[in-house]
Amino acid sequence: MSNKSSGRGRHPDPFGGGLRDLLRVPPGERIDLASYDPGAVPAGPGDKAAGLAATTTTGQRLAKLQERLYAAGTAGDRRRVLLILQGMDTSGKGGTVKHVIGHLSPAGCRIRAFKAPTAEERDHHFLWRVMRELPGSGEIGIFDRSHYEDVLVARVRDLAPRTRIRRRYGEINGFEESLAADGVTVVKVFLHISYDEQRRRLLARLDNPDKHWKFSLGDIEDRALWPAYRKAYELALERCSTAAAPWYVVPADRKWYRNWAVSRLLLEHLEELDPQYPKGDFDAAECRKLLLEGA
Amino acid sequence: MSNKSSGRGRHPDPFGGGLRDLLRVPPGERIDLASYDPGAVPAGPGDKAAGLAATTTTGQRLAKLQERLYAAGTAGDRRRVLLILQGMDTSGKGGTVKHVIGHLSPAGCRIRAFKAPTAEERDHHFLWRVMRELPGSGEIGIFDRSHYEDVLVARVRDLAPRTRIRRRYGEINGFEESLAADGVTVVKVFLHISYDEQRRRLLARLDNPDKHWKFSLGDIEDRALWPAYRKAYELALERCSTAAAPWYVVPADRKWYRNWAVSRLLLEHLEELDPQYPKGDFDAAECRKLLLEGA
Repeated sequence: MSNKSSGRGRHPDPFGGGLRDLLRVPPGERIDLASYDPGAVPAGPGDKAAGLAATTTTGQRLAKLQERLYAAGTAGDRRRVLLILQGMDTSGKGGTVKHVIGHLSPAGCRIRAFKAPTAEERDHHFLWRVMRELPGSGEIGIFDRSHYEDVLVARVRDLAPRTRIRRRYGEINGFEESLAADGVTVVKVFLHISYDEQRRRLLARLDNPDKHWKFSLGDIEDRALWPAYRKAYELALERCSTAAAPWYVVPADRKWYRNWAVSRLLLEHLEELDPQYPKGDFDAAECRKLLLEGA
Repeated sequence: MSNKSSGRGRHPDPFGGGLRDLLRVPPGERIDLASYDPGAVPAGPGDKAAGLAATTTTGQRLAKLQERLYAAGTAGDRRRVLLILQGMDTSGKGGTVKHVIGHLSPAGCRIRAFKAPTAEERDHHFLWRVMRELPGSGEIGIFDRSHYEDVLVARVRDLAPRTRIRRRYGEINGFEESLAADGVTVVKVFLHISYDEQRRRLLARLDNPDKHWKFSLGDIEDRALWPAYRKAYELALERCSTAAAPWYVVPADRKWYRNWAVSRLLLEHLEELDPQYPKGDFDAAECRKLLLEGA
């Protein structure tokens, strides 16, 4: 695996660092998703069992860093993280939230799933609704879908004039750049699954009545649009992978790898931020004395 | 322990059910908090180890019911849960969120900590800011502090005229009754710690520089107001424990009991709700055929 990354923090790790370098979409490069294998496990643990164990360990380290980030946020540190999850139906956006974010302290996470926009949301600029859900200082925000829907489904289903959609890529880049300048570490993850794996997952949902609520006829209709979606994703990845907010392509046919990779990506970013517990603005010895004397 | 409760669902449980009956503040009764022992473990597991194990088991059952609640919410079931946590500093509101809510799927939880109101919040009716943070259908909302601050700290620190504060109890009852009528199961928990236990916890924070961010001089100042806070809590508990939204007093000097009790209270309410996975509005056999034929 790549060893180019420098900002990997102080923890030695048996799986090495720098997953960011390996999965990042190089800014300005043309993307052909056919050349990305959704079943690959780049730099990953050897097998599923090792992957689950490593994800748990990574989760514990994430939780510690998250507490520091949160603590720093209470003392004026404006830094925060925004994890954006995009991918086709069944690619595992919800599962990633459950298995990666589930390791974190829930009070420090702000999770928002974006569905088809409401009438009020449509009445505003497409960035309006995401703006309102950004994480605060010290928080980790998680978007299950995002403003990228406005250049993905909007493009595939012609929900807006093509000229307007073309303008949006630049607006997104400007928006994300201003977030980065404001202290937001933006981590954009495309969960990349194959057409065949999606079929298997849809069939699995159909086979289990307790999973029927996750299924709709539209899921099958969307499969006919698979090539158009792939093209829309390629455009989003190549136009909006910037230095300020790069895209990462995570192979997602194997759930254990997907969870491991997203938790590693988060970890690498948090270790680079290296948040610190703030010092108190009080005299601890004096306070201790007051309490021991009966206060 | 009490065996009056009927809505305990179908799971047999070694610790029995009906914790609600035991911890509920009877509507209309006068409350003297001095008669509630913060170190008690009513109906709890025998010791800390058993408590931790039981909380994990309860958490797994909670997670399953939460998924059903969420699934039902996607199909028009308007029911949802709102857990309100109140208590003095160090009583463990944050710890409860971490150790109880941490077992749930984070995407289905909407957690909000209410701090001193902002200028915009003060410009509105005191219920305005909580109204905006209510859980949606199928969600579990968690308030770390709530509209009760407006009859607690507001009363103790004279932040509003006494006549206005007196009116608020009735407004809260009307508000919570309308929530209940709208499908919100309101679970109000007062985490009851002792004056001495708070001292121990504050000292522990002072002893650990990594915990200094949780401490402020105001914590010691507030201890001088302990009797006034207790009186304000007693009034809130006796005036606002209603049939639609009762208060529960959870002894909170032992963290393991506190976590166990809150998770049990949530479980009993969710088992009574007994949410069901919705049926799909599609022909599963037909969809399976389409997929297998190449869709």
